[in-house]
Amino acid sequence: MHFAFSPDEVIRIVQPREVRGAAAGTIRGIASLAAARAGDLSFLGNAKYRAEVAATAAAIVLLPAGHAGEPPPGQCWLLVDNPSLALARVCARIEHSLWPKPAPGVHPSAVVHSEAVVDPSATVGPLCVVEAGAQIGARSHLQGQVWVGRAASVGADCWLMPGVRITAECVVKNRVRLQAGAIIGSDGFGYEFVAGRHEKIPQIGNVVLEDDVEIGAGTTIDRARFSSTVVGEGSKIDNLVQIAHNVVIGKHCIVCAQTGISGSTTLEDFVILGGQVGTVGHITLGKGARVGAKSGVNESLAPGAYVRGTPARPFVFEQRLTALRQRLPELFQRVATLEKAAGAKPPAPEAP
Amino acid sequence: MHFAFSPDEVIRIVQPREVRGAAAGTIRGIASLAAARAGDLSFLGNAKYRAEVAATAAAIVLLPAGHAGEPPPGQCWLLVDNPSLALARVCARIEHSLWPKPAPGVHPSAVVHSEAVVDPSATVGPLCVVEAGAQIGARSHLQGQVWVGRAASVGADCWLMPGVRITAECVVKNRVRLQAGAIIGSDGFGYEFVAGRHEKIPQIGNVVLEDDVEIGAGTTIDRARFSSTVVGEGSKIDNLVQIAHNVVIGKHCIVCAQTGISGSTTLEDFVILGGQVGTVGHITLGKGARVGAKSGVNESLAPGAYVRGTPARPFVFEQRLTALRQRLPELFQRVATLEKAAGAKPPAPEAP
Amino acid sequence: MHFAFSPDEVIRIVQPREVRGAAAGTIRGIASLAAARAGDLSFLGNAKYRAEVAATAAAIVLLPAGHAGEPPPGQCWLLVDNPSLALARVCARIEHSLWPKPAPGVHPSAVVHSEAVVDPSATVGPLCVVEAGAQIGARSHLQGQVWVGRAASVGADCWLMPGVRITAECVVKNRVRLQAGAIIGSDGFGYEFVAGRHEKIPQIGNVVLEDDVEIGAGTTIDRARFSSTVVGEGSKIDNLVQIAHNVVIGKHCIVCAQTGISGSTTLEDFVILGGQVGTVGHITLGKGARVGAKSGVNESLAPGAYVRGTPARPFVFEQRLTALRQRLPELFQRVATLEKAAGAKPPAPEAP
Repeated sequence: MHFAFSPDEVIRIVQPREVRGAAAGTIRGIASLAAARAGDLSFLGNAKYRAEVAATAAAIVLLPAGHAGEPPPGQCWLLVDNPSLALARVCARIEHSLWPKPAPGVHPSAVVHSEAVVDPSATVGPLCVVEAGAQIGARSHLQGQVWVGRAASVGADCWLMPGVRITAECVVKNRVRLQAGAIIGSDGFGYEFVAGRHEKIPQIGNVVLEDDVEIGAGTTIDRARFSSTVVGEGSKIDNLVQIAHNVVIGKHCIVCAQTGISGSTTLEDFVILGGQVGTVGHITLGKGARVGAKSGVNESLAPGAYVRGTPARPFVFEQRLTALRQRLPELFQRVATLEKAAGAKPPAPEAP
Repeated sequence: MHFAFSPDEVIRIVQPREVRGAAAGTIRGIASLAAARAGDLSFLGNAKYRAEVAATAAAIVLLPAGHAGEPPPGQCWLLVDNPSLALARVCARIEHSLWPKPAPGVHPSAVVHSEAVVDPSATVGPLCVVEAGAQIGARSHLQGQVWVGRAASVGADCWLMPGVRITAECVVKNRVRLQAGAIIGSDGFGYEFVAGRHEKIPQIGNVVLEDDVEIGAGTTIDRARFSSTVVGEGSKIDNLVQIAHNVVIGKHCIVCAQTGISGSTTLEDFVILGGQVGTVGHITLGKGARVGAKSGVNESLAPGAYVRGTPARPFVFEQRLTALRQRLPELFQRVATLEKAAGAKPPAPEAP
Repeated sequence: MHFAFSPDEVIRIVQPREVRGAAAGTIRGIASLAAARAGDLSFLGNAKYRAEVAATAAAIVLLPAGHAGEPPPGQCWLLVDNPSLALARVCARIEHSLWPKPAPGVHPSAVVHSEAVVDPSATVGPLCVVEAGAQIGARSHLQGQVWVGRAASVGADCWLMPGVRITAECVVKNRVRLQAGAIIGSDGFGYEFVAGRHEKIPQIGNVVLEDDVEIGAGTTIDRARFSSTVVGEGSKIDNLVQIAHNVVIGKHCIVCAQTGISGSTTLEDFVILGGQVGTVGHITLGKGARVGAKSGVNESLAPGAYVRGTPARPFVFEQRLTALRQRLPELFQRVATLEKAAGAKPPAPEAP
């Protein structure tokens, strides 16, 4: 990661409420407060590290507005509303320099069908395939070894990383980012059991990814039986997630890694699912519902619900059950003591 | 999804027991009863939607034999044994028109070794690799960016979707469908711990997929240590499933998404595993056994067993345990009441 | 799997402590004691199969030093310290003959940037992409359809199987083996919630895989927010594992299939995680800690800890809780009996 910013460039990006002190030289690295060296940018993202500010060797420190004190000579403090977000904006600039988008055009090794339509401002990298009837929008970037199937469409300003597959008829709208190996439009998993065999139910719908969606590496999203499997505007899906056919995910949801959402389930807007969650099919998770990691959701959730466990139950109740389960040895002992006092016959011993 | 069927074509595909009414015009869409518009085909797949039949605007409705009443003018009812299956057969026809198999032959961008044997009726799409000694059978379709390794074989009428990898020596029989990104023949995960390091146990067996198997997107199937990892005839494996080395899956099994089967475990015929299930290695799940979603199976199951939970226990027993666990707060209270009545010393308070 | 060894070659590989009897002919197969036929090599890897030694038809049997008795005519026993390891070393030789490494050089269909540096002894297979600034070390083998991104580096003697993706700036050291479809360097999953939307936190760090690491098929390893996500020397990661940004895995760890490790968590050396485990972020699993399959780890573990369950608790305690949970029906009954004896009012009946 080689980059260089002048302190003035950092200030222009961050737009701080206040600048204290001044940094000399060039910013060439980003590090935590404790690890930072001269020439680094650092930040206070979590109040528990506040004591580390005094000792940091960073050249520039992003701090929350209202942070007291003054920097030592040669260090610059930028006071901002949200240091973590300010850092993100600096990093976004670095990201552009790390992954410079190649010039528009189609790499000679790519296989683009004569009936596909690639915007002249788009970049189709090495060894991509774009099939008949597919469309690639303005400034979108197919990085390499990407597959865009028959009559699929990719909107403007999308980034499809190596090995992404979008199958026939699927729709990817604008500013969508697909991590390496994401698979959009695999068949839904549906069979009829007929005469002792599983006969396939064809899956002739598609997948629609709305604006500003991000899909993680290796995640699979199945096409609908008919109609569409949908991921709503601004929703972010992590790696190795499975989204089954006819699922509808609302706007601005978060789905963490290795979670699976069964067929025809709906997530309303702003739902958050932790990692390794599973849901049954044909339920609705209400607006803003949250599910703790590794939970199994077997019924619909009200808007704003916060649940965990398998089967998932309200968070505080589940915490209580978890605590009581750990006291089962004590409870068995207490019951035995009561029985002894009452002169009851003890239960049969446990099977070995 | 653009398609057009005349009502007569639908009748020819569905072969109904009885036709009531008549539809005019062309069928151009498929939709649920409630969503259907003029020109759509709909169906009653689940009795709980029966009341929606009367109000549907669909041009043709697939209904179970014995459904009472008459369609309104311009609507046609087709009475069949299994409306869902009948719909599947219509959709299969649509699927063929959505994904027309390209003409036989090897795309010029594919890399086929001179010592590979590709049947003249097979299609090898763009940017595929077929290595030395590999065989591709009649009418099989390698869609694109597929890898078929050294001395691997693919039978007749298979469909390998974009990014499928079949590694050396693996055997794929006939009418097998591999979803995008499926990996057949990764190394089994085995090491000997020697002198403070994990020394690899080479995995020199292969994977065999028998006739009519389907493997989901991103699923990984490991090659055997020696001999074969096997998926039996007609079994269907969903997305992101992990099948370890030396697993043997019988005929007509169903394995749902994100399930993992550990090494050397055997599934007999007709076993069904829900999503996110895990099994330990070296056990046998008897014929027709069923395991609920998210369960952990740590011992062999008798034929016909139906289990869930971690560790998995008989379904009804596990349901009972789940219900009783939710009554733990009440039980602790009841014991405390008994203790108070008996004048017992209360237990030490919970640790904070 | 076609191979042939003379008995003398097997002896040279295995270096037995003692040879009893003699085998005629050529070794052409490997099988379990029960399945072995003439011409096969077999082994006693687990004492519970000891009785099968007498009846095996194998030509050569690998046995633990000290095994009593004599082979029948035409059979050869090789007595070794660790029969399973001895077999592994024979299999390693077979593996070389199954997957002969192609001659050095770049396949004409590969796309190697003019500013990439490929060692003349390395092999870059068909349809690989090696981007500007990337380096491929001595004798390394990119099998095919592999992506090595901008300024990434691969050391010596690595094996990257079909469809592996290594993204920009990532570092793969020496003797690393990456199974098909592994993704090294996907973006970490981090967002700031700003004005009702999730704003991406750019991920500008990288991934470092140290010497002798192995990564499973379809596994995803996220690049750090800044600095590095690290997998330490000799650690082995199974299929479909998710390793989040800024995770640091020590030396000689084992992580089984479908496990997920959340961001910024540290595994010290020799940690072992079973399959389908999940850990929260920002914790440390001490040296040699072990976690049973399907567990959820929500706090740091002491060195040598052995835990299971969700939340993960000491193994023996969790086994006890599991057993007691299965006795809940009995416990509720016992409490009801006590209540009846005490003349207490019974609790309200369960909701239906």
